[in-house]
Amino acid sequence: MEIKVLKSILNANDQVAEQNRQELTRRKILTINLMSSPGAGKTTLILKTIEALKGKARIGVIEGDVSSDIDSQKIGQVGAPTVQINTGGGCHLDASMVNEALKNLPLDDIDILFIENVGNLICPGGFDLGEHLKVLISSTPEGDDKPYKYPGLFTEANVLVVSKTDLLPYVNFDMPGFLRAVSGINQKVRVFSVSANKEGSFKEWADWLSGELSCRSI
Amino acid sequence: MEIKVLKSILNANDQVAEQNRQELTRRKILTINLMSSPGAGKTTLILKTIEALKGKARIGVIEGDVSSDIDSQKIGQVGAPTVQINTGGGCHLDASMVNEALKNLPLDDIDILFIENVGNLICPGGFDLGEHLKVLISSTPEGDDKPYKYPGLFTEANVLVVSKTDLLPYVNFDMPGFLRAVSGINQKVRVFSVSANKEGSFKEWADWLSGELSCRSI
Repeated sequence: MEIKVLKSILNANDQVAEQNRQELTRRKILTINLMSSPGAGKTTLILKTIEALKGKARIGVIEGDVSSDIDSQKIGQVGAPTVQINTGGGCHLDASMVNEALKNLPLDDIDILFIENVGNLICPGGFDLGEHLKVLISSTPEGDDKPYKYPGLFTEANVLVVSKTDLLPYVNFDMPGFLRAVSGINQKVRVFSVSANKEGSFKEWADWLSGELSCRSI
Repeated sequence: MEIKVLKSILNANDQVAEQNRQELTRRKILTINLMSSPGAGKTTLILKTIEALKGKARIGVIEGDVSSDIDSQKIGQVGAPTVQINTGGGCHLDASMVNEALKNLPLDDIDILFIENVGNLICPGGFDLGEHLKVLISSTPEGDDKPYKYPGLFTEANVLVVSKTDLLPYVNFDMPGFLRAVSGINQKVRVFSVSANKEGSFKEWADWLSGELSCRSI
């Protein structure tokens, strides 16, 4: 009985997600579901991408948080259109929340849409929002054992961004071991390494994303 | 309708939690529900506490993870009794899981029981496990805005441990601002600062915990 109910909720979510994806695809808005633990650097990745792609791609943002509008304030300050979703206690976004947020964004003026999910390495798994790409951030101070402990999101991700690499000298993080663990559960994932404190560190990621925007038939 | 169902689940959890607490209190086992984001240092705090209280208090551990037995292996290596719970995908422990785990621990030989919850800054909130103290860890690389974004656990915590303070020179973390945010939502919380890379850094916490064990009428 319980399984049946869960399945019908998931299907309802999948239906709305598919509507979102069709609308976003029709408008050629490359859409990213951005996920990570709290404080791994989701908002920083978005801000650095906006900076790196200035004049090349117009970026919009849906900000998901349990509480506060701290992140959407930061995005707004650099002039990108943004909508804040507060889940109130919910541990992930769902397709209906995104559907509602889309109505409040100037979709004609957006080439790439980031959906910053709630900071959580478990719950966003399995909830399709209608995105084209799932991007997971894993920060070095979290440690290199996360793929073993939280396999769900690591398995689903199309792209993995290893963040805060400037902290590598100070934390226990075995990069080759981490990458082995990742490829053990997800051989197709594309990996980038970044640090907000290293000049030009986001270039490779931004170039790749820009390439996806032009070449990918979304 | 939905609210009613949720309420009855919560009540069922609360009932088992109360059974756990009565059993643990009767046995004078000081029990801690240890919560944080993934990779904030829960297992390290337990290992450092075992080391600091050697000869003073016997520590047992219940390890909660979505997957893997990495943490219980680490605890086992220092000779402490431990039980691993894998939630399989569940984003927090509940009182029934703890009840089951208690049957597999040598309770006569334990003075302090750590229940290491699943790494998650949202879901463990509101789920009583039968503990005497809720201890929350917040690591400096996660950033100083976490009390605003995830107020639930910061409001519930009896003790807040700020971890990875050795990284303060390299990360954006305004300690006075963070502590102001915390006291804005929780005036009673007791705060400790620790770093696994600073000698003697866990002493103040361990001394306090040892004091709680002798003085607290659990």
